[in-house]
Amino acid sequence: VRIAVDAMGGDYAPQEIIKGAVTAAVEEKIKVVLVGKENVVRSELGKYDYPSEYIEILDAPEVIEMDEHPAKAVRKKKNSSLVVATRLVKEGRAAAIVSAGNTGAQMAAALFELGRLPGIERPGIATVFPTPSGGKVLIDSGANVDCSASNLVQFAYLGSAYASQVLGIPDPRVALLNIGTEPTKGNEAVVAAFKALEKDDNINFWGNLEGRDFFTAEADVIVCDGFVGNVVLKLTEGIVTTLFSLLREEIVKNPLRKLGGALVKPGFREIFRKLDHTEYGGAPLLGVQGISIICHGSSRAKSIYNALRYARDAVENGFLEVVMKKLQVMAK
Amino acid sequence: VRIAVDAMGGDYAPQEIIKGAVTAAVEEKIKVVLVGKENVVRSELGKYDYPSEYIEILDAPEVIEMDEHPAKAVRKKKNSSLVVATRLVKEGRAAAIVSAGNTGAQMAAALFELGRLPGIERPGIATVFPTPSGGKVLIDSGANVDCSASNLVQFAYLGSAYASQVLGIPDPRVALLNIGTEPTKGNEAVVAAFKALEKDDNINFWGNLEGRDFFTAEADVIVCDGFVGNVVLKLTEGIVTTLFSLLREEIVKNPLRKLGGALVKPGFREIFRKLDHTEYGGAPLLGVQGISIICHGSSRAKSIYNALRYARDAVENGFLEVVMKKLQVMAK
Repeated sequence: VRIAVDAMGGDYAPQEIIKGAVTAAVEEKIKVVLVGKENVVRSELGKYDYPSEYIEILDAPEVIEMDEHPAKAVRKKKNSSLVVATRLVKEGRAAAIVSAGNTGAQMAAALFELGRLPGIERPGIATVFPTPSGGKVLIDSGANVDCSASNLVQFAYLGSAYASQVLGIPDPRVALLNIGTEPTKGNEAVVAAFKALEKDDNINFWGNLEGRDFFTAEADVIVCDGFVGNVVLKLTEGIVTTLFSLLREEIVKNPLRKLGGALVKPGFREIFRKLDHTEYGGAPLLGVQGISIICHGSSRAKSIYNALRYARDAVENGFLEVVMKKLQVMAK
Repeated sequence: VRIAVDAMGGDYAPQEIIKGAVTAAVEEKIKVVLVGKENVVRSELGKYDYPSEYIEILDAPEVIEMDEHPAKAVRKKKNSSLVVATRLVKEGRAAAIVSAGNTGAQMAAALFELGRLPGIERPGIATVFPTPSGGKVLIDSGANVDCSASNLVQFAYLGSAYASQVLGIPDPRVALLNIGTEPTKGNEAVVAAFKALEKDDNINFWGNLEGRDFFTAEADVIVCDGFVGNVVLKLTEGIVTTLFSLLREEIVKNPLRKLGGALVKPGFREIFRKLDHTEYGGAPLLGVQGISIICHGSSRAKSIYNALRYARDAVENGFLEVVMKKLQVMAK
């Protein structure tokens, strides 16, 4: 198994990307192809003692920046690290691609180079969302800002196939994120998607889920459009960070609290670990003919390392074949 | 100042609603008109020792249920507590209405009975959102699930007028909730609203705000459609509740942690107070010709009490006149 890594994509590229890739090669013996400007990658790699049989470099002279127009950038920069890395997957020279670069461009590259799965109009990003009761799949967490009802239904199919494969849940419960539990609630797309999912025998439909039950409801897959999903993802991150920094401020306010804080700190760490998205590392783009793992733009080495482990597991579990088979069964 | 209270609306009506109203009458000397089924209200009131000069009862034999179709229910049930209470405002017999009932119906009643403010196509719910750095106005937090760019721009006007009046900020910074900071990010309505707000001299436009900066960014008003706003509101509530219950679990896991927990507890309470939405009680429906305060369906006495204090302050500050004047200035 070889995995292509976009060495130039992300807020902390190439340093943190390469550091994460080296860790994955050393600790997990994952074979990595670092795609990027050869001299930059080589000089960065020089910092480490790494097993050369696990790390290759492939030169890609261009870089797609974070603020470039996704589709235009992909069309124009055919020799960018992102496009070259994706092409490796298409050509069977890598089993998956991992990038922390421009998300829209990663999706566009996957669409152009790998193509869609049969029956899928638009791919969606599936984020495994840490919650106290384990992971939940949120789809779409940012690929599509305007969604039709049929897009939402397809996300339900993709998310369901993914949850059964990755989380090992035989018949995942699929919920629609909405502003009320009644079938009449929501915008046009959500109301129509509710009707379709309710009568779909292939989906174990849980019903409408409200924001306040997001973390506690017994649903395994949560479906929404990419605008809402992205707000949910980032808002959660923001609240968790804000709360922990408030806690930190409060527990150093006087000597007694400092003592108390020291005693409860292991508990805090435990909670933070449960909710820490860097544990998951990356989110797959579902609905394309290949494995494309999207990492947070702010990913550091630990996230890249986890994303690479995740990509390796996905390849070894025959993830894509299982999803395709599930979609075929569902489509019948 | 007399304030009409929908005694029958809310998950804990009439008990908690009436309890909150009595507290407001006793502690704040707020004059309240309890609108609802007279025998029910009277028997509930019998539980309390209250100053009769501050509490009136007005019979309304019908009740709009939480799951009824808003506009249909308002048209059909002209003698419901919600419609009768709203009519009191229209007729000048009450200065504001407070309800924890069916939100959509409260909006429909306000539209039919009170009418829109000039230049406003759709009213929006403005929630003062507790954050560590003080209150921020989120508009729309649930009235409109499908919004056009011009709806969003009008929310910016309303929210701006409200923040300057209620939060006392001379020139509120208005942000658009979005999935990226670049002007090209977002769905169609948001992209068009960005363009309009950017060149609007009446709005102190802050730019696009991402979910992760929701609590920390230096924006005073956050504009979004009601679907996204409602998800944000309820998700935040869910996360804060989940985190505090996780903390509680962790700090009783062993005797040392219990000790530590006891020492840091005052700090926790301080944080919870900062983020507790019941402190704010109610959210005004902005854009209608009258003061209509929407309370959470799950409101208990404390929230109703706070909503009544808030309604009283709004009336005494000439809130509606100020908002109208601001809108006129802005429209020029």
